[in-house]
Amino acid sequence: MKALGVDPGSVVTGYGVVEGAGQKLTHVTSGFLKVGNRPSFPERLGAIYQGLSKIIREYTPEVMAIESLFFSKNVKSAILLGHARGVAILAGVNAGLEVYEYSPLEIKQSVVGYGRADKGQVQEMIRILLSLRETPESNMADALAVAVCHLNTARSIARIERKESGYRL
Amino acid sequence: MKALGVDPGSVVTGYGVVEGAGQKLTHVTSGFLKVGNRPSFPERLGAIYQGLSKIIREYTPEVMAIESLFFSKNVKSAILLGHARGVAILAGVNAGLEVYEYSPLEIKQSVVGYGRADKGQVQEMIRILLSLRETPESNMADALAVAVCHLNTARSIARIERKESGYRL
Repeated sequence: MKALGVDPGSVVTGYGVVEGAGQKLTHVTSGFLKVGNRPSFPERLGAIYQGLSKIIREYTPEVMAIESLFFSKNVKSAILLGHARGVAILAGVNAGLEVYEYSPLEIKQSVVGYGRADKGQVQEMIRILLSLRETPESNMADALAVAVCHLNTARSIARIERKESGYRL
Repeated sequence: MKALGVDPGSVVTGYGVVEGAGQKLTHVTSGFLKVGNRPSFPERLGAIYQGLSKIIREYTPEVMAIESLFFSKNVKSAILLGHARGVAILAGVNAGLEVYEYSPLEIKQSVVGYGRADKGQVQEMIRILLSLRETPESNMADALAVAVCHLNTARSIARIERKESGYRL
């Protein structure tokens, strides 16, 4: 099974596709969409959607995994992130993917074995787990980490709808 | 010129198309997309996107107008709204529409002539301005109001990108 992990943002959106077969995890592709230089906010959203849709067509993942909402103190940033995240989820849904979400704690626990791991530890563990030659850039590492988390914890997966009560309007 | 006004929400999204020719405003269509009963949050986003895309194909507005972000005290609601709003904007962008935003104050000022007008006054003024037989439902009225605001204030329009500095990440 191939999982697409996404780390959405209205400036940079990281993505990573990981293939899981039994215990074996294989890095398929990863990168990031830099959209911060687009002339308007709507065009940034368009670029995130088109970029992720292209990745999905090219690498044909069956599922999308994305970090769950976090409620930061910076409300403006959080709402902007909401726009980018909504568009990222839509790219998955419109391509027929199921979308799963994991909390930062679940992701770190799954990848590093320690829920309070820092960014550097996540990057380093992703490098080792996926046999990458270089330490992945932070957004890419976060995207790969949520894909790995999904593949690792396929038994405890919970589709977004089952968790939704926590943040339904 | 035809303007599509959108009042996005992750449960109900109102829409309204208004045609403006000189001083004359004509109601073309309005309604709302009820997506709260979809089995998952991603499917709700999909339904908002598909629904608005269909309206755009059918009624061919040239522009989309949407209320600017407001930063409510309820952060969770605001972030969910961000998802719906992102998807609504994307439906406009992907159909080649320009997207404009107006603050609640600008909308009320433009429609009622009074920035602190209440919802009922906006609904009643929309009914009168667009010669509707019945008072429109609240989400529809809000969507029609932002379309009317755009057509009324076409001289002072500001595309989202020009305002964006206020809430860039």
